[in-house]
Amino acid sequence: MKPRITVITLGVDDLNRSLAFYRDGLGLPTQGIIGTEFEFGAVAFFDLQPGLKLAIWPCDSISRDAGIGKFRHSPTEITIGHNVATTQEVDAVMAQAGRAGAKIVKPAQATFWGGYAGYFQDPDDHLWEIVE
Amino acid sequence: MKPRITVITLGVDDLNRSLAFYRDGLGLPTQGIIGTEFEFGAVAFFDLQPGLKLAIWPCDSISRDAGIGKFRHSPTEITIGHNVATTQEVDAVMAQAGRAGAKIVKPAQATFWGGYAGYFQDPDDHLWEIVE
Repeated sequence: MKPRITVITLGVDDLNRSLAFYRDGLGLPTQGIIGTEFEFGAVAFFDLQPGLKLAIWPCDSISRDAGIGKFRHSPTEITIGHNVATTQEVDAVMAQAGRAGAKIVKPAQATFWGGYAGYFQDPDDHLWEIVE
Repeated sequence: MKPRITVITLGVDDLNRSLAFYRDGLGLPTQGIIGTEFEFGAVAFFDLQPGLKLAIWPCDSISRDAGIGKFRHSPTEITIGHNVATTQEVDAVMAQAGRAGAKIVKPAQATFWGGYAGYFQDPDDHLWEIVE
């Protein structure tokens, strides 16, 4: 197995709500919802750095496609790290997330390991850490 | 916010078990567990493509660091996509994951959108999709 991840797919409850958050709120580039010609196919992809995409897909579709059960959200399952160059940029991204409707669970502050970071949660409580 | 993710951190129950799975089973490059000088700091990073790392960090540490509660695992929270070039490579990675102790939840097969893919779960039930 090559050390490579090409898509990070977040399970969401409401595709349109999450699309609005990531596209309009955080400004991530996307072609919007595609795949609606397939049952359980509706999905949206966001272009990140070359070779990596973020996707949002309903939890029900993940459950169906993988053939596993349904589960309640678990905010400690994953954190998504977004590293930036300066503390000011951390503050700016946290403020942008707040304006987009994110839940600011930990305002940006000095970290125990010597950095500067804050956490917010997306509409399905997925944790993002903005880190300098 | 720039469209960029730099770290994907998976919440795990047993850091050593997950390290063995990802390092020894899947062969991902890592310096092993670091940060043990900090309470709740123990973590392992795996180098993926340039600019992206995978991390494993106990759910308890995520809960503590973000200041949120504890939650049960939710396998529909995220899927991690690993794209490869051929169906043979999908089969090879699925077989490697099986040997590493992964739970094969959906053997590789044709997908509804015309590709070829399989799902496995890591020791904490995080879903990986291997896709051609």
